[in-house]
Amino acid sequence: MVATLGSLVKLTVFGESHGAAIGAVLDGLPPGLELDLALTEQELRRRAPGRSVLATARRETDTFEILSGVYNGLTTGSPLCAIFRNNDTRSSDYVLLKKVMRPGHADYAGYVKYHGYNDYRGGGHFSGRLTASLVFAGAVAKQLLAKNGIALCAHIASVGHIKDTAFNPLGEQEATFTALVSKEFPVLSEVAGRAMQEEILAAKAAADSVGGSIETMIVGMGAGIGEPFFASVESELARGLFSIPAVKGLEFGAGFALAGMHGSEANDGLCYEGARVCTTTNHNGGVTGGITNGMPVLFRVAVKPTPSIGKPQMTIDVESEKNTELQLQGRHDPCIVPRAVPVVEGITAWILLDLLLRSGREVRVN
Amino acid sequence: MVATLGSLVKLTVFGESHGAAIGAVLDGLPPGLELDLALTEQELRRRAPGRSVLATARRETDTFEILSGVYNGLTTGSPLCAIFRNNDTRSSDYVLLKKVMRPGHADYAGYVKYHGYNDYRGGGHFSGRLTASLVFAGAVAKQLLAKNGIALCAHIASVGHIKDTAFNPLGEQEATFTALVSKEFPVLSEVAGRAMQEEILAAKAAADSVGGSIETMIVGMGAGIGEPFFASVESELARGLFSIPAVKGLEFGAGFALAGMHGSEANDGLCYEGARVCTTTNHNGGVTGGITNGMPVLFRVAVKPTPSIGKPQMTIDVESEKNTELQLQGRHDPCIVPRAVPVVEGITAWILLDLLLRSGREVRVN
Amino acid sequence: MVATLGSLVKLTVFGESHGAAIGAVLDGLPPGLELDLALTEQELRRRAPGRSVLATARRETDTFEILSGVYNGLTTGSPLCAIFRNNDTRSSDYVLLKKVMRPGHADYAGYVKYHGYNDYRGGGHFSGRLTASLVFAGAVAKQLLAKNGIALCAHIASVGHIKDTAFNPLGEQEATFTALVSKEFPVLSEVAGRAMQEEILAAKAAADSVGGSIETMIVGMGAGIGEPFFASVESELARGLFSIPAVKGLEFGAGFALAGMHGSEANDGLCYEGARVCTTTNHNGGVTGGITNGMPVLFRVAVKPTPSIGKPQMTIDVESEKNTELQLQGRHDPCIVPRAVPVVEGITAWILLDLLLRSGREVRVN
Amino acid sequence: MVATLGSLVKLTVFGESHGAAIGAVLDGLPPGLELDLALTEQELRRRAPGRSVLATARRETDTFEILSGVYNGLTTGSPLCAIFRNNDTRSSDYVLLKKVMRPGHADYAGYVKYHGYNDYRGGGHFSGRLTASLVFAGAVAKQLLAKNGIALCAHIASVGHIKDTAFNPLGEQEATFTALVSKEFPVLSEVAGRAMQEEILAAKAAADSVGGSIETMIVGMGAGIGEPFFASVESELARGLFSIPAVKGLEFGAGFALAGMHGSEANDGLCYEGARVCTTTNHNGGVTGGITNGMPVLFRVAVKPTPSIGKPQMTIDVESEKNTELQLQGRHDPCIVPRAVPVVEGITAWILLDLLLRSGREVRVN
Repeated sequence: MVATLGSLVKLTVFGESHGAAIGAVLDGLPPGLELDLALTEQELRRRAPGRSVLATARRETDTFEILSGVYNGLTTGSPLCAIFRNNDTRSSDYVLLKKVMRPGHADYAGYVKYHGYNDYRGGGHFSGRLTASLVFAGAVAKQLLAKNGIALCAHIASVGHIKDTAFNPLGEQEATFTALVSKEFPVLSEVAGRAMQEEILAAKAAADSVGGSIETMIVGMGAGIGEPFFASVESELARGLFSIPAVKGLEFGAGFALAGMHGSEANDGLCYEGARVCTTTNHNGGVTGGITNGMPVLFRVAVKPTPSIGKPQMTIDVESEKNTELQLQGRHDPCIVPRAVPVVEGITAWILLDLLLRSGREVRVN
Repeated sequence: MVATLGSLVKLTVFGESHGAAIGAVLDGLPPGLELDLALTEQELRRRAPGRSVLATARRETDTFEILSGVYNGLTTGSPLCAIFRNNDTRSSDYVLLKKVMRPGHADYAGYVKYHGYNDYRGGGHFSGRLTASLVFAGAVAKQLLAKNGIALCAHIASVGHIKDTAFNPLGEQEATFTALVSKEFPVLSEVAGRAMQEEILAAKAAADSVGGSIETMIVGMGAGIGEPFFASVESELARGLFSIPAVKGLEFGAGFALAGMHGSEANDGLCYEGARVCTTTNHNGGVTGGITNGMPVLFRVAVKPTPSIGKPQMTIDVESEKNTELQLQGRHDPCIVPRAVPVVEGITAWILLDLLLRSGREVRVN
Repeated sequence: MVATLGSLVKLTVFGESHGAAIGAVLDGLPPGLELDLALTEQELRRRAPGRSVLATARRETDTFEILSGVYNGLTTGSPLCAIFRNNDTRSSDYVLLKKVMRPGHADYAGYVKYHGYNDYRGGGHFSGRLTASLVFAGAVAKQLLAKNGIALCAHIASVGHIKDTAFNPLGEQEATFTALVSKEFPVLSEVAGRAMQEEILAAKAAADSVGGSIETMIVGMGAGIGEPFFASVESELARGLFSIPAVKGLEFGAGFALAGMHGSEANDGLCYEGARVCTTTNHNGGVTGGITNGMPVLFRVAVKPTPSIGKPQMTIDVESEKNTELQLQGRHDPCIVPRAVPVVEGITAWILLDLLLRSGREVRVN
Repeated sequence: MVATLGSLVKLTVFGESHGAAIGAVLDGLPPGLELDLALTEQELRRRAPGRSVLATARRETDTFEILSGVYNGLTTGSPLCAIFRNNDTRSSDYVLLKKVMRPGHADYAGYVKYHGYNDYRGGGHFSGRLTASLVFAGAVAKQLLAKNGIALCAHIASVGHIKDTAFNPLGEQEATFTALVSKEFPVLSEVAGRAMQEEILAAKAAADSVGGSIETMIVGMGAGIGEPFFASVESELARGLFSIPAVKGLEFGAGFALAGMHGSEANDGLCYEGARVCTTTNHNGGVTGGITNGMPVLFRVAVKPTPSIGKPQMTIDVESEKNTELQLQGRHDPCIVPRAVPVVEGITAWILLDLLLRSGREVRVN
């Protein structure tokens, strides 16, 4: 178990989906930051289930209580702990799962690792519910990043085989980010968005689920952030992003397409635009040698289909040590991608804040 | 700068390509391991330049000297330091590069981060030369993993648009691994291999370079390895792999293809094969919930084309603060992918050793 | 801020004395440990204020709520979070302290570090209240250590100039430990204990406070625990112990007395007692070269007098930037030493558990 | 094994006294620092053996080679590796020690921990020789600290029962520091110094050794440095200082004397001296709540007598598993304290540099 992420700012998460509460400790925040609670709640609503027919019907109230680290609305510099009480947890949905392992889930791997002592209800510590803590931490980090001129935004890049328009690798307008954040289904192309939603509803109707991908852009970092050899921007973001349940792939800039390119195409030519250094293309996604080069940082993650599906599946019963069939009951997300968007943003924001602090650059709090 | 990787075993790298030496400190190795120096040298030869027309003509002698941590041929349990002296370094090749930034390289990002004090000759600390240390560490780690029944192997999955046969996700024979390790150009399909080599020679003839990808398989880990939430198998491997210069993408199992799948297809059905638990497919690449599930661990990395090319390129001169044209002289790899294979294996082996030790499972040294 | 302690088991603390709650996250605990809640509560009672005339009259209810990491009374292997709600907090006692800095306290140093944003009420994050989390973590760690044959115990070694009998450096009977734990005022000599209590009451009567020292012994570690160079047993214990507010000195074995010895006296002669290796003296406190040698580990910490006293003191007002006089009201401990005993034991137990896990030795949970 | 110390600057040490070389990797140094090699060599000479009749007659040439991280005399920002080749190593002196454990040394504890695979010659990794790396790292750190107005200095506080004059806790003149550094036997009182040297020679004549203590003062830190809860100034310094072989005690400010004080005496009254905040006494040694308060930081360490003595000692033979007598031959320090002074300073400087960088305060390199 490693529940802590970060170097100068450390995020520690805890909780199981059917225990008393989940939560997070945010350590290393600078003192004097005025917390925007409305904005924090808005971020959490973007992740919350039960908002539309596209998501699970579970209604978790993602309301948090701050136990420490904030006084008179400002951070104190001491660890900030926030907890989310669990409720609407129908544990009876999960009785069977003590012994019957759900394919595609952590069930069997966790059963071996924890010798059967893990809290299996609702996935326990592996539940997507835990990501509320990541969104909370990200909301706080975003507020600090914003004070330092850094903004980030993600959109649904694909659902099944339907693709959204990509971000312009050379940069997007602030208005594009603002519009995306306010959308319930954050895509750049509404046409693609409607097709994606139909894909999700079709999967739902078939008692199945569907995967997708998410693209993220960060602007305003400037050049010179990142700690090679082993804490490059890519290494640090990768470590965080692969912690998100269901993320199975990650590419920066042109990513896997770079494998098919020649150097003369892939190299991003440098040029002065006035006093500012730019590149003419951004195949490297704003990072060269593990350090930001001043262009927008750009990456995509692959999100696998929700493993919880209603269709019957072949699996094992670890009690009887026999093969068996499993038909999951309960309420599941036919596609986790829309709810994963603020999670990807959240962990990205936390990692960026850590890298910013490690760079030694002065960090403003107001 | 973060030059250290790992938790219970810590790898620290140092050196610049045109300084006195590069090297590595391996800390946390168990005592009593008999070091197989011949095998270590063989691994280093797989990475060494100057072996064929496919690679740079530089002849670095990748011979190492062990300064500590080994007594009578056995590890002592104290930090093992190995150094590689630099030679055949034509510093005059690089005089221009103090001010003219090479596109696609760390030059500009590093110039900003290190305020111009970094050793720019040959890429300095960002040089591919540094990866010799990773191969060395990996060679030691592989020897320990082998004592514990764990083997790993990588092959060139693609060069440009030419693809090798993929590993069978359900597992490969030991003979396949043995054959790959002994090949100068490690591919499963000789036909594909020849086509790839032609692609590389074509790029070289055009004073250009070409990218590719590498696929890696690990067998024998068993189920239950990995430290979620934040040190999952995927997170830890990702952190290490994205430290390798030129790696821009990473996917586990079916990876980005999972984004286009339905859950009923993506979920790997579990079953008993006798007393052993298997999955019928391996779209998750042997990792669920961040923990190994006992199936082979499988991933692919995207490697961008070598940024050093002979073709003229537009770029900037940071001294005059003007745009300029750069035509690189010197000896460059038209494709870094073949030499990157042992590097990917090396860092993978190091991370696996660390995860194995952290799991608390007993680790054998002989 | 660094709120996390440990390597394989990580303790993260949070909270301010006058905020909503304080608490701790215990990460890395092995799964399947049956938590003895009664024993945990008993440990917390040893630290709790308001038990006798020797301590502050504040009545904090040191009752905790476990939010995660325990299912059916057994640890799950996921992070265990426990919180202690704050109550009986008379914030009005502290209004003055926003600007008037208490001598001997963290007030002024914290004011500078946190730019005045720290929660100054009751010392905030620097309050002794935070040590309840350390005692909780220690109570859990002790239960695991006990399963592995390791016991530890501390006693009040001195109050002011009155000294208790010292532990026998070669080892104490289990009955001695059992007796000490059950005592409200844990000393070996009842005569010394009564004199110490009179000393404390005299200080209280004079609106003053008094310091003291605590001696700790650990038995059952065996030889071979500790991770030199930089995580020696002494380094790791020191890091933890100096985190306890008011601890200003630490010595192992004969400690500062060793500075006055000759080698022929200080060296602990080794000998076989049957198959067991012992030393004839234990001036090194069971640790040589940073590694346990199988003898009892023995150390003493110096605890300064509680800085909160009723006597008038000269100090500064940071608002008016003038010198001023402060006469503290409120309820204070005339001597913190008795309540610090379980805190010293707690942090010691946590560090030992971490060192035990890092040693690679098999750890039993039942 | 944990060979790495520090958070933002990381020191990794390696080497055994009779291997090829010892050395250190300094990671995280800011780029552009002009290394003063003469000053670095001078620091190393202060530690070097063979300088006087008071020390061992071994003549280690503490000359170092810098392998990386420095270009044109300036730090590059990449890891700096320096090595010290071993020579004048009479391995034959140590043949017996493979099986006969020296009392007071790491021999037996290390034998158990490393299962007999450790390099026992000359203490191997536990040799005092390793401290040359600490002095080197400290010399570099001191140069950076000096650019930021921070100076530190240590003196021999006692040898056996003879005590030097103590530092004035409220601060010392720069001239005092300058004078101490230039002394071969660094004491404040020459009278005490002569008596100490006689004590050492008497111990030498008796084939014995003698312990002592060292006092260190740091000025110019300012208030607000330190990272409580667990990386307080005291915790971090303690972790480093207890890594030094032979250090068995540590006290800050009045230290153990505080245990005998009343609060009204121990509390350091605050006052403005013009715009500057001072304390009227400095019993807390410049640290309250784990954070510097602007007064000089002051601590003392206890150094045990060199365990290597010529007198016959009772001990064990682990090969025959029998008790035996050991009479050590070879050249030993009758008192390690004088040579330990620059080691204490070195590790202190490294820790301070790390704390300074972590504070977020701007750090100057020239």
